[in-house]
Amino acid sequence: MTKLVECVPNFSVGRDESVLEALAAAAGSVPGATLLSHSGDPSHNRSVYTLVGGPEAMAEAAFLMCRVARDKIDLTSHAGAHPRMGAADVVPFIPLMETTMGECVELSKQVARRIWEELGIPTYLYEESASSPGRRNLAEIRRGQFEGMPAKMLLPEWAPDFGDKKVHPTAGVTAVGARPPLIAFNINLGTADLGVAKTIAKAVRAAAGGYACCKALGVMLEERGVAQVSINFVDYRKTPIHRVFETVRAEAARYGVNIIGSELVGLAPAKALVDCAEYFLRLEDFDFQKQVLENHLIK
Amino acid sequence: MTKLVECVPNFSVGRDESVLEALAAAAGSVPGATLLSHSGDPSHNRSVYTLVGGPEAMAEAAFLMCRVARDKIDLTSHAGAHPRMGAADVVPFIPLMETTMGECVELSKQVARRIWEELGIPTYLYEESASSPGRRNLAEIRRGQFEGMPAKMLLPEWAPDFGDKKVHPTAGVTAVGARPPLIAFNINLGTADLGVAKTIAKAVRAAAGGYACCKALGVMLEERGVAQVSINFVDYRKTPIHRVFETVRAEAARYGVNIIGSELVGLAPAKALVDCAEYFLRLEDFDFQKQVLENHLIK
Repeated sequence: MTKLVECVPNFSVGRDESVLEALAAAAGSVPGATLLSHSGDPSHNRSVYTLVGGPEAMAEAAFLMCRVARDKIDLTSHAGAHPRMGAADVVPFIPLMETTMGECVELSKQVARRIWEELGIPTYLYEESASSPGRRNLAEIRRGQFEGMPAKMLLPEWAPDFGDKKVHPTAGVTAVGARPPLIAFNINLGTADLGVAKTIAKAVRAAAGGYACCKALGVMLEERGVAQVSINFVDYRKTPIHRVFETVRAEAARYGVNIIGSELVGLAPAKALVDCAEYFLRLEDFDFQKQVLENHLIK
Repeated sequence: MTKLVECVPNFSVGRDESVLEALAAAAGSVPGATLLSHSGDPSHNRSVYTLVGGPEAMAEAAFLMCRVARDKIDLTSHAGAHPRMGAADVVPFIPLMETTMGECVELSKQVARRIWEELGIPTYLYEESASSPGRRNLAEIRRGQFEGMPAKMLLPEWAPDFGDKKVHPTAGVTAVGARPPLIAFNINLGTADLGVAKTIAKAVRAAAGGYACCKALGVMLEERGVAQVSINFVDYRKTPIHRVFETVRAEAARYGVNIIGSELVGLAPAKALVDCAEYFLRLEDFDFQKQVLENHLIK
């Protein structure tokens, strides 16, 4: 059993290189935690770190990074384009390989509790970890931002999941949760007609009656004269890439348009792609964990 | 850069559990070497071990296993159904991830030299490591087996690549080489007509004018009443699974027959399957090493 977790914490710092480095160092100090990437955005004054490792390593790394954020980021003097409510703003845990969502929910609760008990920062649980449906959506929790949280927390429906109804004076509050991996995947159409891409995007996106775990927009690749269906898979285990691909293919055929290519943006778990091979090759009784050689090497 | 090598050494022992265990222990003693599987076949009196790890770990594990084989296997009293010429009969190195075939060829030469210099066993290089075209095929090297090797080695064309023209008295000679990973993949047809499967197998196999790195047979799955094209991919990097799959699909359609399923037998490298996803999804500018998340975790 390979237990692997991804953690993608967001911090309210994007300009101070010394803080960005201190956060990376905290992640790097945990054995078994691998920092895949990190980037600070000066205009958003915000940074995103992508870590992968075993569940315990991810919990420890996330906690240590939150401690650095509390010590080095002061939200009373923070300005940036991105909404934020905490020095460590949001800490999602994402199941990979054979880790279940339930295990990531448990992990998020442990870390949320520890952030309150050891750092004195109140925490909210969100997405799959949410304690009520109204707290699933991070944007709902964060509405009002750092400046509005002291008043919001006094409302009965916005008591934090862990901690007193009082923001940390400089580090605010933090949202911790579990969610599936996000996959950004674009499909290019053999047409310069943006309307076709928009119509197809509407056919597949959840908001318009399409697939439940799919967000999609029609956009224009001006430099190529190609219309594109730009897709976010918010849970490829429920709405797999190949199913949306085949639906886009069928909808495009309605206009005499072909799929001329596609694009994976950033990283994806191997299983999201191997699931597609399994579908197209019509594999029977395939066992991803056992039959993919490299899976035996990830500890 | 993830340098990973697979090693699948074959030993002339399949009945003596203590020797099988000693070989496994030698493999397990090398840090960074993972023994994925091993099995002894009593009727063949032969065993196969599958190891994966970094190049140095694989070279060391293979060498240590050959030393155990020399010390514990006596070919003068060996009988079994499978042809053999050495206690350690054949030691192939197989490139995975970002390892090149050239690196495995170098590795095989290092190990072949060491087996001679430190164990006193003459070695032949085969497959991609062969010093002449007539030595690529292992069956050609092994013809005559242990009993015939003393005379064969005296022939000018059969001088060993490393060592004197004289077999080790109890451990014989060993073939060491580099080859691509083998993938066993079967395609099930929606027909009980074995003739269709045989005709399609002929269309795709190298021996009959098909794909150069593909072996194929038509067989009958009696219990299901399904004809099957049973395929060995001897180099999926040159002849990929999806290309043969699509050709089988087209040839089957000629008879009004569909592909109703397929089967991966045993293990395959992730890339062999992700290559299929890349083909069917029409991915542009896809970078397997960088964009598959787990690849960043294999050291």
